[in-house]
Amino acid sequence: MPYRAPVADFRFLMDHVTGFDRVTATDRFAEATPELADQILTEAAKLCEEILAPLQRNGDTDPARLENGVVRTSKGFGDGYQAIAEGGWIGMSADPEYGGMGLPMTLTTAVNEMMSSACLSLQLNPLMTQGQIEALEHHASDAIKDLYLPKLISGEWCGTMNLTEPQAGSDVGALRSKAEPNDDGTYRISGQKIYISWGDNDFTENVCHLVLARLPDGVPGTKGISLFMVPKRLPDENGNAGVANDLKVVSLEHKMGLHGSPTAVMEYNEAKGWLIGEPHRGMAAMFTMMNNARLGVGVQGVGVAEGAYQHALAYAVDRKQGKAPGTGAIIEHADVRRMLSAMKADTYAARAINLSCAVAIDMATATDDADWQARAAFLTPIAKSFGTEVGMEVAHEGVQVHGGMGFIEETGAAQYSRDVRVTAIYEGTNGIQAMDLVARKLMDGGDAAFRLIDEVIDCAEHARKTHKELGEAVWQAAESLRETTEWLVGQSDLNERFVGATAYLKAFARILGAHYHLASALHGDNSRQRLAAFYIRRLLPEHTALLAQTRDGADAIFALTNDDLAA
Amino acid sequence: MPYRAPVADFRFLMDHVTGFDRVTATDRFAEATPELADQILTEAAKLCEEILAPLQRNGDTDPARLENGVVRTSKGFGDGYQAIAEGGWIGMSADPEYGGMGLPMTLTTAVNEMMSSACLSLQLNPLMTQGQIEALEHHASDAIKDLYLPKLISGEWCGTMNLTEPQAGSDVGALRSKAEPNDDGTYRISGQKIYISWGDNDFTENVCHLVLARLPDGVPGTKGISLFMVPKRLPDENGNAGVANDLKVVSLEHKMGLHGSPTAVMEYNEAKGWLIGEPHRGMAAMFTMMNNARLGVGVQGVGVAEGAYQHALAYAVDRKQGKAPGTGAIIEHADVRRMLSAMKADTYAARAINLSCAVAIDMATATDDADWQARAAFLTPIAKSFGTEVGMEVAHEGVQVHGGMGFIEETGAAQYSRDVRVTAIYEGTNGIQAMDLVARKLMDGGDAAFRLIDEVIDCAEHARKTHKELGEAVWQAAESLRETTEWLVGQSDLNERFVGATAYLKAFARILGAHYHLASALHGDNSRQRLAAFYIRRLLPEHTALLAQTRDGADAIFALTNDDLAA
Repeated sequence: MPYRAPVADFRFLMDHVTGFDRVTATDRFAEATPELADQILTEAAKLCEEILAPLQRNGDTDPARLENGVVRTSKGFGDGYQAIAEGGWIGMSADPEYGGMGLPMTLTTAVNEMMSSACLSLQLNPLMTQGQIEALEHHASDAIKDLYLPKLISGEWCGTMNLTEPQAGSDVGALRSKAEPNDDGTYRISGQKIYISWGDNDFTENVCHLVLARLPDGVPGTKGISLFMVPKRLPDENGNAGVANDLKVVSLEHKMGLHGSPTAVMEYNEAKGWLIGEPHRGMAAMFTMMNNARLGVGVQGVGVAEGAYQHALAYAVDRKQGKAPGTGAIIEHADVRRMLSAMKADTYAARAINLSCAVAIDMATATDDADWQARAAFLTPIAKSFGTEVGMEVAHEGVQVHGGMGFIEETGAAQYSRDVRVTAIYEGTNGIQAMDLVARKLMDGGDAAFRLIDEVIDCAEHARKTHKELGEAVWQAAESLRETTEWLVGQSDLNERFVGATAYLKAFARILGAHYHLASALHGDNSRQRLAAFYIRRLLPEHTALLAQTRDGADAIFALTNDDLAA
Repeated sequence: MPYRAPVADFRFLMDHVTGFDRVTATDRFAEATPELADQILTEAAKLCEEILAPLQRNGDTDPARLENGVVRTSKGFGDGYQAIAEGGWIGMSADPEYGGMGLPMTLTTAVNEMMSSACLSLQLNPLMTQGQIEALEHHASDAIKDLYLPKLISGEWCGTMNLTEPQAGSDVGALRSKAEPNDDGTYRISGQKIYISWGDNDFTENVCHLVLARLPDGVPGTKGISLFMVPKRLPDENGNAGVANDLKVVSLEHKMGLHGSPTAVMEYNEAKGWLIGEPHRGMAAMFTMMNNARLGVGVQGVGVAEGAYQHALAYAVDRKQGKAPGTGAIIEHADVRRMLSAMKADTYAARAINLSCAVAIDMATATDDADWQARAAFLTPIAKSFGTEVGMEVAHEGVQVHGGMGFIEETGAAQYSRDVRVTAIYEGTNGIQAMDLVARKLMDGGDAAFRLIDEVIDCAEHARKTHKELGEAVWQAAESLRETTEWLVGQSDLNERFVGATAYLKAFARILGAHYHLASALHGDNSRQRLAAFYIRRLLPEHTALLAQTRDGADAIFALTNDDLAA
């Protein structure tokens, strides 16, 4: 099934819904004119439709594998990667001083979504590199930047992040990898890291690992962790990839999906590394990388949702069943139509949230304004979790639309569902995103949340004049969200917040999605109005149960003892 | 992770919640005393825990395969099958005249659930045979019954059902397979059938295919379809498996999960067959088989849910994370605990619905009472859909509880999620179950539905005396359900019902689940009361959005044009 990039949706959301014009009105991003944005989106769409989408199935049927210590990637991935690199797509938002395009994250987000739809397992590679570029831009010395950034931005080299160890997953502070200083200012890095996405490949000259490890004087926990650049090949005097460093891929994981992306167990045996940022401040640097990556993962979710939706829609239009009315295809069945409508409406809502998060990041970058920073920080866990939840749900329904064919791998529907599953887990599980939202992101007393809710209410009040029923529904929902947010902010016992965290995040996303649909209805054609009506009438009502769950409190859950759960 | 069969839950639900005592009070099932039931459950639990559960991973890692036209099954499956057959578990509810145990379907349901938890892909084999036994008991001639039933019940032979063809899925009436009469009263069957679960194996002497095909004088559509017994090997004069029939396995499907179950494309080339039932009445006979199988598939869903829950619970108890309070294991984290609590509460609710459906089937069998028949018919699509939805959701959350390990196949968590996916599709997709519920199962003007709702309300009114908050919540929900059911019954345009069918089925199941939890709280210990409180406070509220979606009407969905969906 050929993928068709939703360029018109991106344009519409940028022009009419997410306030992208504020980004291009800044000095920093003044060059990102509508004409340039058009050109970028059109070029990227072409890459994704023609070069990357045909590689999608290869990633599943011809998985990455380890042969005699060397990673062999899926058929065509090397060429696909070169096309991404040569198009300049890896460094779209990177600093022009090092070869980047300096474009807004909003455009990168749109392009990343298209690449994720086309071939998720390959797209994960440049996504990791983008995170590394941003971490280096913010935290590395000039020498490191001069050496690594041009290579990463051009795609000659690529980057990974190495956090997890067998005993240290979500609790990164438990890590045991060590860094010992050499006399020349470098370090010897030793330890085992797991779940290293794209830990190696056979198409870049070098692989640059950012590794968390503890210096000899590092205290236990997260405050004693430092960040190191540990390249697969040590740069020679000309800055080119030279001799091999003392690190290796021990094994690749056998995963539920994303088979095209080699997930490595890495072993560092006194490998040579360079400190990035201050000693013991590795977590701060890593968070720069992770925050970028969190939005990126939410974008992956929406990318898969779009791919799975188009795939299911094509099947539903094509597949005839004798009893179906109208065209005789199964799309005419009410329940199939309900599934497709929900898939499309949810994908659109999640896309709007991602782009809004990206706009906030761009505004924060361009203006250094604290409110925009807070908006970006607040939207990031929502974008990550909701984007990936939508990705999983849409891919799941995509299988269902296919009926029996959905369970057969050759169809490709199941691959979307298997591939996207990890997005709810990596870069911080969705549960951790929700805890971040109700704890850290409400530490401002809810200021960032209330500002956002106020915007939703303002828009709904405006909309009620022309779209009475829809505006009223969104207004009511936003008022309920405000009340629940006030309740949450008032809970000093964090467990009271945590038990409802996932429900709160989902409710917030549901209502934000309604807001963006409503804004689309105000500025869009009949088609967008009908889609908004569907979302607001059918999907928005779910917020009531979610808000009730948010406020149900800890006692219903913690009343259940461990013995009850094991009974 | 060792599986532990939930025998105490089965006993409690039979004794205190689902009214199993009414079944054993009938003449037909008088022998199924509590002592016998205990013995049955204990023996089956032992089989599942010790023999079948260790085979579960083999079904995934060593898939069934086709070698030179012969199906080779997963390591250990042959022995596992023999243990099932020798225990008499295949023919538990079959007619004692042919070697069955004549036990209530309620007990078979409990045993089938345990087998599904332990090894779903193998359990599908006897489930198919059970359906075939029931179809033959109701529709076959004495000669066929005498020949086939003893072999099927003993497990020497097994059975399949052959409905689907490439162009005829949910629309069975479009099938093209042909049956031409021979002079001796037999038929020549020709055609291709797809998605034939356990289409062949290497551990039974024979495989008995029930095949839908059209006689020369069969009209187009479902009214011209007849049912035939087409064995892999033709019975010789002594009734033993003799020479090969003209049929073969063309290929096995490459599926998302359930790799241990060979899903065959079958080709019949003038194979010899025997008519089952009347000419052109094949669909009626097949529906006997499918109705049985539909409950059986709902039971598979709950079986996987229980297996996945136990698997995730063991991980959550075992996995330490530095920051977790209490035992230091991740089960102490609020969001992990929320997931586990919901998994357990939902599994219990779905199990209660399945057993209640089985009780209704048993009462209908024992008494021939029309109300019990209607109850069984009404509960069957709910049991099938809700059981499999719970199976998918719990398996999905089981992956999430495992974090990164959940995406790694060796853990086994992902297998539950992949295996169970098909249960929402086969034996009629869940969408078709929902359409059946709101159309055919409400054709009595809602009598069966209202009788059930009345029971829920009666119990809630009783419960309010001692469990005020919980009883009130269930009472309110049931009243809303009654109103929505009245609205549905009043819609003569079936599309008005169909657009909300899935939501209605989910709402009905949610509320029924609350009812059984409430009944459990009334008769159970503190542990059951806490679980009921969790379900009713946290999960029941979802019914409001579901009922709103049910009544939203067709215009929101059908306002979206095909062009809108493709925009």
